[in-house]
Amino acid sequence: MKKLLSKFPGRLLFALIAVAMLGLAPAMMAQDEAGPVDEYLELVEASGAEYAPAFDFFTVSMLWTVIAAALVFLMHLGFATLEAGLTQAKNTVNILFKNVWIISIGLITYAVVGFNTHYPGDFNGWISIGGMIGDLNADGGDTWGYGGLSLAMTGFGDFIFQAMFAATAATIVSGAVAERVKLSSFMVYSTILVAFGYTIAGSWHWGGGWLSTLGGGDAAFYDFAGSTVVHGFGGAAALAAVLVLGPRKGKYTKDGIKPILGHSMPLAAIGVFLLFFGWFGFNGGSVLSANPGPLGLVFTTTALAAAAGGIASILVSWAVLKKPDLSMALNGLLAGLVSITAGADSVTVLESIVMGAIGGAIVVFSIIFFDKIKVDDPVGAISVHGVCGIWGTVAVGIFGGASLMSQIIGVIGVYTFAFIFSLVLFLVIKAIMGVRVSEEEEFEGLDISEHGQEAYSVSS
Amino acid sequence: MKKLLSKFPGRLLFALIAVAMLGLAPAMMAQDEAGPVDEYLELVEASGAEYAPAFDFFTVSMLWTVIAAALVFLMHLGFATLEAGLTQAKNTVNILFKNVWIISIGLITYAVVGFNTHYPGDFNGWISIGGMIGDLNADGGDTWGYGGLSLAMTGFGDFIFQAMFAATAATIVSGAVAERVKLSSFMVYSTILVAFGYTIAGSWHWGGGWLSTLGGGDAAFYDFAGSTVVHGFGGAAALAAVLVLGPRKGKYTKDGIKPILGHSMPLAAIGVFLLFFGWFGFNGGSVLSANPGPLGLVFTTTALAAAAGGIASILVSWAVLKKPDLSMALNGLLAGLVSITAGADSVTVLESIVMGAIGGAIVVFSIIFFDKIKVDDPVGAISVHGVCGIWGTVAVGIFGGASLMSQIIGVIGVYTFAFIFSLVLFLVIKAIMGVRVSEEEEFEGLDISEHGQEAYSVSS
Amino acid sequence: MKKLLSKFPGRLLFALIAVAMLGLAPAMMAQDEAGPVDEYLELVEASGAEYAPAFDFFTVSMLWTVIAAALVFLMHLGFATLEAGLTQAKNTVNILFKNVWIISIGLITYAVVGFNTHYPGDFNGWISIGGMIGDLNADGGDTWGYGGLSLAMTGFGDFIFQAMFAATAATIVSGAVAERVKLSSFMVYSTILVAFGYTIAGSWHWGGGWLSTLGGGDAAFYDFAGSTVVHGFGGAAALAAVLVLGPRKGKYTKDGIKPILGHSMPLAAIGVFLLFFGWFGFNGGSVLSANPGPLGLVFTTTALAAAAGGIASILVSWAVLKKPDLSMALNGLLAGLVSITAGADSVTVLESIVMGAIGGAIVVFSIIFFDKIKVDDPVGAISVHGVCGIWGTVAVGIFGGASLMSQIIGVIGVYTFAFIFSLVLFLVIKAIMGVRVSEEEEFEGLDISEHGQEAYSVSS
Repeated sequence: MKKLLSKFPGRLLFALIAVAMLGLAPAMMAQDEAGPVDEYLELVEASGAEYAPAFDFFTVSMLWTVIAAALVFLMHLGFATLEAGLTQAKNTVNILFKNVWIISIGLITYAVVGFNTHYPGDFNGWISIGGMIGDLNADGGDTWGYGGLSLAMTGFGDFIFQAMFAATAATIVSGAVAERVKLSSFMVYSTILVAFGYTIAGSWHWGGGWLSTLGGGDAAFYDFAGSTVVHGFGGAAALAAVLVLGPRKGKYTKDGIKPILGHSMPLAAIGVFLLFFGWFGFNGGSVLSANPGPLGLVFTTTALAAAAGGIASILVSWAVLKKPDLSMALNGLLAGLVSITAGADSVTVLESIVMGAIGGAIVVFSIIFFDKIKVDDPVGAISVHGVCGIWGTVAVGIFGGASLMSQIIGVIGVYTFAFIFSLVLFLVIKAIMGVRVSEEEEFEGLDISEHGQEAYSVSS
Repeated sequence: MKKLLSKFPGRLLFALIAVAMLGLAPAMMAQDEAGPVDEYLELVEASGAEYAPAFDFFTVSMLWTVIAAALVFLMHLGFATLEAGLTQAKNTVNILFKNVWIISIGLITYAVVGFNTHYPGDFNGWISIGGMIGDLNADGGDTWGYGGLSLAMTGFGDFIFQAMFAATAATIVSGAVAERVKLSSFMVYSTILVAFGYTIAGSWHWGGGWLSTLGGGDAAFYDFAGSTVVHGFGGAAALAAVLVLGPRKGKYTKDGIKPILGHSMPLAAIGVFLLFFGWFGFNGGSVLSANPGPLGLVFTTTALAAAAGGIASILVSWAVLKKPDLSMALNGLLAGLVSITAGADSVTVLESIVMGAIGGAIVVFSIIFFDKIKVDDPVGAISVHGVCGIWGTVAVGIFGGASLMSQIIGVIGVYTFAFIFSLVLFLVIKAIMGVRVSEEEEFEGLDISEHGQEAYSVSS
Repeated sequence: MKKLLSKFPGRLLFALIAVAMLGLAPAMMAQDEAGPVDEYLELVEASGAEYAPAFDFFTVSMLWTVIAAALVFLMHLGFATLEAGLTQAKNTVNILFKNVWIISIGLITYAVVGFNTHYPGDFNGWISIGGMIGDLNADGGDTWGYGGLSLAMTGFGDFIFQAMFAATAATIVSGAVAERVKLSSFMVYSTILVAFGYTIAGSWHWGGGWLSTLGGGDAAFYDFAGSTVVHGFGGAAALAAVLVLGPRKGKYTKDGIKPILGHSMPLAAIGVFLLFFGWFGFNGGSVLSANPGPLGLVFTTTALAAAAGGIASILVSWAVLKKPDLSMALNGLLAGLVSITAGADSVTVLESIVMGAIGGAIVVFSIIFFDKIKVDDPVGAISVHGVCGIWGTVAVGIFGGASLMSQIIGVIGVYTFAFIFSLVLFLVIKAIMGVRVSEEEEFEGLDISEHGQEAYSVSS
């Protein structure tokens, strides 16, 4: 009874307002020609009359979804500039070209096969290859009927937001294989990876697959915006590709590790700040509505984890390397961001700082470690996305109330699949067309050898 | 009395809502001073009581309008960096300076004369020069009363969104005349072009002019976000300017075409990705409300057309030029975007891909063609904006349900006007003050000769 | 009659459905599982039943707040690239590193101490050091209950929007002390400045302190988005730091002033355009809701003042320096922006143009003046933020209806405090650890001497 009363006044109040507005309006406004309010009411009605009282909330949520999609799109510029900045000038055209390819083919394959593979509806929980999207506005797809409150957007909103994520996996790999991968081979590889690899793994969690039903669903794997199913997938795929490809010539010599410096730290910094900016769409958009409470929390935890990652990485790398290292500072921001992505909606302010800081520390040691074992990753993608992806996902089992066991199972499942998928795909491509440029081409730079064009002309 | 009656129903409605709220709420909340809801109701009432039930939809639509305006603003950074990247280092200061000028003078002239020329209200359908904007929030300009559901924004929202478009025409020309145009002459040219040329042509379509009434309005010209009236206008104006100006020295020699390479492909890539990003505001904002169905469709068709343009341009240019060309890939993305701009709200997913892909193919051949006929356009602006603008506009007559005849008439009308306006203006300026720098200045670079400053200092 | 019928049934049907849904829904849908509308109603109810009718307006306002926060975040990339572009290549890593540090420590200290110092609630009007933020979503912090209509956002929305502002002060100083400040000293300085200096001064105005109660509150100091309490604070702090630090070696010689040129004008231009873009969040977000009328006005005045500043600066500097100077043009845009920040919501279109234009003229003379008196400010930060901050604030007393006396008192109070706080802090740090690198390090460049890394590698 007490509960009933506590709920009743709000409902009644709301109902009365709606009655006043909607029930009496026609009678009173009979004489006018159709004005904005009439047209608005038609719009509301077209969205499904039963959804009327929630139309405006749906509208603002959908608006947020498409803005978030645009922000995630901009992350691709961030990846492109970060990768270009941290590599040599002689491979810059190649890197930019790859990134144009990745976002283009990522969007198109996601329309043709990816979206309906990622979200297959009822399926066996493991794999279901889908077909091309049609008119997602049809059959109530432009109303609440599409996804309800847990996915407060239209079908096209859902598509475009997810489409912007899809190419991320290939972009992460792109950084790790930079400066020696054969262009045409990478184009084939990235197409198949984003069309099938990323979407199948994603369907396990976000598409209603086996990760979403662990423990009867009560102890399901939890990965808010994709520490594992986006970043981890890309990092694990990158590791496999790098193992097949081998290090850049001259990196690991008998005289020890010879650093190959990036050619433009401003480009790298532009990249990281744009990624940070876009991450507000990546994590914020994953609220899947404009619900004010979660939205503010997610923005806050995301920003604080990044900041904590940056500070931790600065301090730890300073202690270890004996100098304030800009690359580590930049990777620290990204490490913090990957570390909060799985749990941005379910941790406290203090926990987000701790999670980000630990991520920022991890990334320093991880980058040093992979260099020591001669896994040559020019931009640190395996450490930032792969290793911090593990930490971020597991951390939700420690801080965020998820089942630690499910988190570990999810990490193992997705990382294993990504690694094997990437490994097999890369090996097949290697057998058919090769995956690496010749030593001469690598020495000359891919810009000249693959594209016949330099990034920086001094023709004048 | 008449006035009272005309207002009465809305007032009554509002009063009833207020009764529901204020009559019942106090009973439930009893004691308090004016809280947020009271203030909110005052806000709603101030917006015109009859619009009350649609106030929140108006608010979210207006929010989208100003965010979209900011995104379109950012396109000017995209144009600046693309143009700078695709030209020589010695002209970079000049290009950046021109772009600061263009956005500044574009905004100011749009306030002083442009807006009311662009949207003159009742006029002869061809030309009506307007005066300076005043307080657009007055007289219900900050309510639904301003534009209704078909323009769900305040007067200032309408102004600022359109103002960001206005300078685009001059920016497109800027790229085509780069590296040899005289600065002061271009400053005069661009001022007049954006103040009068762009706005007069635009008034024919968006201002209720003759293009909007073709076939009695039933078969009116259709150009959703401006393939013709923005991009086409700029491309045609650019062609006229280039014909008067002539090619850069040393480009077309008796030994054939000598490519003059851009000096920074990262800058060019930053430019194209920012343009792509900003286009979500350009096309998305052209929905003119936050209506969820169209918004999701427009974001989707815009992104897919760009992606298809990028892929088509990569494949076609690879086949033609025998190498994977980054400039063509970048221009392919833009070609796809221009190609979808006229019909982004009225085609299917598949059609958007086809339209973008054809645009991406066209741009390759168009750039080669203009080079062959010795029309020297350093950044490919005439092909991207002018030629693809034709394709995008005509395509709405093929795929999007518009009248093919009206589309063709519109293209001919606007392109002809833009070409002649630009030609006459440029010739007059040439006669009075000259339009081209001297051969020595061109050789030395405009940065030193016009600005006495280099873009890249090595003073240290 | 036909017309009536054609409209009536739909209306009636809709109204009836709405009535059934909203009035009877709870009773009728008892058997169903919860649909979107039920979940929405629960969401509304959870936000506080008495706020129900304004829930959607709150949601859209909160969405705008977090988007605006993201835009302000991007200004930090703008500052970083502007500062890097206007200084020498040999100090670029140092500048980027400082900017990673500033945004990171700015966000973290704002969570730990800043927010509750900035907004202490009831206090003595001068100073109250706060503690760490907790769960700002608790106790109605995610509803209207947090700030009402005058602060239509959740607690976390308020936090993250303000947190993005906090680091700005340190960034402004960073530009002025660039190329000779000792890194570790600046890191300590900036931490204390943003944690305590900025927040204490801000509390006087925005936190309910003495500036907000001047003249009994009727004649209170008015600074809409922070011409004085953000930009002026940074500019005055920068002046103190520069006076302690002294000019760069070789700038002021017995042969006169030797300009030290920035190394990349494209970077500088990217910075200014990103700052302009982010300023839409800075000023627009300061509306503190999505109220359509003020929002459109603020976007318009902000853009027009910037444009007017750019034009004025171009014309004035051309007249004075006898050449079209890009640095002045860029600083003119920023000068216009700082000049409108205090009054963006309370002036007319024409006044905004006048205010921006005067700011754009002032900045030219101010930069020349400070150079003449040998205050070496590599990026012009003292002039842009400090001097134009005074103008912008005073202008609201001239044009915007604020008390001119209170504006002057506010400027004097905040600038004096910022100057003294910065001076004392910098002198203390100088005494303990030094604030300036050695002459050799300065000559060699901070990238090598402090970081052991160059910004532009030519390793290949």
